[in-house]
Amino acid sequence: MAAPKIILDCDPGHDDAVAILLAAQHCDVLAITTVSGNAPLTLTTQNALLMCELAGLDIPVHAGADRPLLVPAAHAPRAHGATGLDGPPRPEVHRSEASNDAVGCIIETVRGHDDVWLVPVGPLTNIALAFRQAPDIVERLAGVSLMGGAIGPGNVTPTAEFNIWADPHAAQIVFATGAPLVRMAGLNLTHQLCVGPTETAALRTHGGAVSTFVADLFEFYLAGYRERAGLEAAPMHDPCAVLAVTRPDLFAFTARHVDVETDGTLTRGMTVADERPGTDASPNCEVAYSLDADAALALIVDAVCSYG
Amino acid sequence: MAAPKIILDCDPGHDDAVAILLAAQHCDVLAITTVSGNAPLTLTTQNALLMCELAGLDIPVHAGADRPLLVPAAHAPRAHGATGLDGPPRPEVHRSEASNDAVGCIIETVRGHDDVWLVPVGPLTNIALAFRQAPDIVERLAGVSLMGGAIGPGNVTPTAEFNIWADPHAAQIVFATGAPLVRMAGLNLTHQLCVGPTETAALRTHGGAVSTFVADLFEFYLAGYRERAGLEAAPMHDPCAVLAVTRPDLFAFTARHVDVETDGTLTRGMTVADERPGTDASPNCEVAYSLDADAALALIVDAVCSYG
Amino acid sequence: MAAPKIILDCDPGHDDAVAILLAAQHCDVLAITTVSGNAPLTLTTQNALLMCELAGLDIPVHAGADRPLLVPAAHAPRAHGATGLDGPPRPEVHRSEASNDAVGCIIETVRGHDDVWLVPVGPLTNIALAFRQAPDIVERLAGVSLMGGAIGPGNVTPTAEFNIWADPHAAQIVFATGAPLVRMAGLNLTHQLCVGPTETAALRTHGGAVSTFVADLFEFYLAGYRERAGLEAAPMHDPCAVLAVTRPDLFAFTARHVDVETDGTLTRGMTVADERPGTDASPNCEVAYSLDADAALALIVDAVCSYG
Amino acid sequence: MAAPKIILDCDPGHDDAVAILLAAQHCDVLAITTVSGNAPLTLTTQNALLMCELAGLDIPVHAGADRPLLVPAAHAPRAHGATGLDGPPRPEVHRSEASNDAVGCIIETVRGHDDVWLVPVGPLTNIALAFRQAPDIVERLAGVSLMGGAIGPGNVTPTAEFNIWADPHAAQIVFATGAPLVRMAGLNLTHQLCVGPTETAALRTHGGAVSTFVADLFEFYLAGYRERAGLEAAPMHDPCAVLAVTRPDLFAFTARHVDVETDGTLTRGMTVADERPGTDASPNCEVAYSLDADAALALIVDAVCSYG
Repeated sequence: MAAPKIILDCDPGHDDAVAILLAAQHCDVLAITTVSGNAPLTLTTQNALLMCELAGLDIPVHAGADRPLLVPAAHAPRAHGATGLDGPPRPEVHRSEASNDAVGCIIETVRGHDDVWLVPVGPLTNIALAFRQAPDIVERLAGVSLMGGAIGPGNVTPTAEFNIWADPHAAQIVFATGAPLVRMAGLNLTHQLCVGPTETAALRTHGGAVSTFVADLFEFYLAGYRERAGLEAAPMHDPCAVLAVTRPDLFAFTARHVDVETDGTLTRGMTVADERPGTDASPNCEVAYSLDADAALALIVDAVCSYG
Repeated sequence: MAAPKIILDCDPGHDDAVAILLAAQHCDVLAITTVSGNAPLTLTTQNALLMCELAGLDIPVHAGADRPLLVPAAHAPRAHGATGLDGPPRPEVHRSEASNDAVGCIIETVRGHDDVWLVPVGPLTNIALAFRQAPDIVERLAGVSLMGGAIGPGNVTPTAEFNIWADPHAAQIVFATGAPLVRMAGLNLTHQLCVGPTETAALRTHGGAVSTFVADLFEFYLAGYRERAGLEAAPMHDPCAVLAVTRPDLFAFTARHVDVETDGTLTRGMTVADERPGTDASPNCEVAYSLDADAALALIVDAVCSYG
Repeated sequence: MAAPKIILDCDPGHDDAVAILLAAQHCDVLAITTVSGNAPLTLTTQNALLMCELAGLDIPVHAGADRPLLVPAAHAPRAHGATGLDGPPRPEVHRSEASNDAVGCIIETVRGHDDVWLVPVGPLTNIALAFRQAPDIVERLAGVSLMGGAIGPGNVTPTAEFNIWADPHAAQIVFATGAPLVRMAGLNLTHQLCVGPTETAALRTHGGAVSTFVADLFEFYLAGYRERAGLEAAPMHDPCAVLAVTRPDLFAFTARHVDVETDGTLTRGMTVADERPGTDASPNCEVAYSLDADAALALIVDAVCSYG
Repeated sequence: MAAPKIILDCDPGHDDAVAILLAAQHCDVLAITTVSGNAPLTLTTQNALLMCELAGLDIPVHAGADRPLLVPAAHAPRAHGATGLDGPPRPEVHRSEASNDAVGCIIETVRGHDDVWLVPVGPLTNIALAFRQAPDIVERLAGVSLMGGAIGPGNVTPTAEFNIWADPHAAQIVFATGAPLVRMAGLNLTHQLCVGPTETAALRTHGGAVSTFVADLFEFYLAGYRERAGLEAAPMHDPCAVLAVTRPDLFAFTARHVDVETDGTLTRGMTVADERPGTDASPNCEVAYSLDADAALALIVDAVCSYG
């Protein structure tokens, strides 16, 4: 079976970096597009280029939206540091972005290939812009597999997860568009896939340049979760959205109707899923509720080590 | 130990009726106050009087708010029928309300007795009006034990439970007031306390007038849950708020900060609890997460049967 | 013709002080009730007592709500100073409030007298609480004549006037209740009734204790408007609501449907009047659009001077 | 002086049709882009092509957004009929749109020419998408001259004008972007430029094909305003935005800070201008408050007649 064709839309970010490595091993990554999110656009673009160069990936990187549709830009330096990839020594980056038109790249790529998966793991600004500018691409997709939202507690606020909260209007455009298939990996799912000292040690044992770099990423990332939330292992959010495309057999999904709250005082950016028994709301989303964490962790460690 | 002194603020309602019987057996019920909710105020007041008369309870009933603070009045005829107590043959009611000033009754009663518990099991309109008119009473209370809200799915909307949704502004006033102790029994808790054919049969076996009346109530109520949600047992929401006062040992509570969303398009009336590990929001509510359902059910059946 | 019976609900405040003097000369003031607004409740109550004592008025003062229904309390020290009545030397106050139950006073007074006018010139918290606790009083009123809102620019925000913005939920309760007659004197009207050096000089020329006190009030108040908005004369907001009862012949009113925005990000507390030609919204408010300012100013100066 | 280079973004619409004719006479119209608004996109695109064909204009027409960013699509059949251009007999249209990528056309055109004016006279969806996809174009513009909003009463709601209300999120993106110069012609301005029986008669006297077509448009349009609002003359909204570019000398502008309310229950789509004296909000918009209506009407009639 052919590897799935994907566009990875990301804002690296520690877990985005892992998602890039995982996607490149298992998918035909037609493009990486970047967005303002965990860090400002200039940094997320540099970080995507850095990961490609480090791992020797021949994937074009297109820079996208430098701010959300409506709300002010917000970043996550507490989780990812000032650079978005704090932790390891930062190598020089020699590559450049293929363009600064991520939206145009998405539109043309989807028009040029059948059955592309969009895999957004940052704020959904680029995807929303593409869907509104070129509504014809929606039906051409294989689906959208996104990391974002939560069924239950959020992280930025009691109800909202960062990616959705950071551009709630873009998120609502994506959920409401009726893409053929939206798979949602929210915090409720991603907190089941946590890396900790075991995985870090495995990468250090392997000892290649990429493994060491990722081990350094893990240690910075783990220290933050330990300090902020008292956790000894930290969720690998973004790789979940890749795995939901490459290994859906590892997941349990339930079809739900999901909308994004754009107006609430306390609930802005909440993914509102209708879980009521007997509801007559028609599902627009496959919500991931659980996954085989052991298998998923093994795939992540294997992918990282595969680059040396 | 003396029975706790309570004011039961209710909108009967099938589960309210059971809450009245349960409260009168275990508490010193200083007053019953009524509010627009499951049915219009005239009916909820008549239904409270009916239950007192049927069970021979010498408790004054004061009618209160005939509508929410701001949103239009809404009722729940699908759950409770047109009368608010559909099911059993309806006996004539010979009693009358003690006044139509529930708010004044609450204020004077709390000022006149130490350590009163307010036990609201309908929309919180009366309580909010009393707190704003007479803020001095808040500190005099033993606490507020309310049925309302949800940590997780709602019933009226994907995120909101009926009592809070029906007057979200009143609810936010109550949660934000900082009463010495607010105990919240939301849908996540009340759906753990379900009556079904077993309890109905126990009441029919007992066979007194009150037991038969309540068995008829249960059958109407169960039929609705079966039809709407495919459930074979139905939650006894309101008695939970009484039990949280009389038998807190049966519950597991966690202290949380809870606010009510009053503005959201999708989330109006949602109880937003901050469940994030490491949050620095200071708790204003003891949220009930679980209870000993077997013990609670036994207490309910015993209470009903105690009236004959 | 008998003087109109009124309850003056106020938060003195410089223009409230003038409204008290004006009302006491032309109306049968059954009570003064106070509310948190221009200054905290303790101060507004003291200021109302001060004005009564200074002018020798035998009117009971009842303290009311110490905070708005839902939004946090906000005050207007830039306009009224830290005491709410900055400017003149502050005499000692020997009187005390009749009660701290303004809401109960409003309810009982309206039930005890026919055709009372409510004249609220601060946030509408007390009035809203009374209307929700005792809806029967609404129909017994002669009307409500309020100072608040704006048809056009606001003062606290681009769209909102202070009294409505400070408790938008209470305001919406009042506008929506359908009182027999609501007269609205908003900023568009009150900025037509400005006092300046001429009126101050007239009071100084008169030279009695009350006139001198009010002249001092005017000078403080004028200095603020000059500094903040570059105006050489300053609006006498609150007296307009009194005059709309005692001298409606001085005003031009148009019947409009008016609601209060409680949710908007930019528009919270805006009085939304439907001025569209051909609208089918049924009017609930007599909006004052203009007044005979010369006649009104003369009445104000005469009223102040009448106390010495 | 060279004619200004403009892109006319429109949703014809009777007044849009006149704006096309006026723009083509006085400007270098680089492109016409269409948007869902007064009628669905398919119709507004056909209507733009129809006007070009009728008047012999060699201007490419690019179809754009078929729906607003977030709110459901809404149209104005009461003002413009089912076709968007009801009234005259509808000729067959032989032309086709140049593309269905209005957003791409806007981006490329602005990048390819200096000092382009964007003249949007429908919902701002296309403009917002272009600004977010290609933020570099904002600084290259001569300005944006838009018809939309209101300082004072709206038309669709008490506070909102149709174009802004129909896509409030897009409008807020445009106002907030800080384009070098935004000129706003709102209802307060456009209701000063009304056509009536005099202008219709002038066109009929002229008697050419285009003049007769526009006279028929006027009669349909006037009948609607007469019926709905009791007006004997009807505002030529959209030509105002063209004239604000070609003949700014006819207008009185005041610089204001303007934002769009996207959240209010009563105020969605309101253009909130800060008109408070002494405000410290920095202006982002030249708001047109008045124009020389006689001169503007003469220009409109001349322009229409110039096509025969």
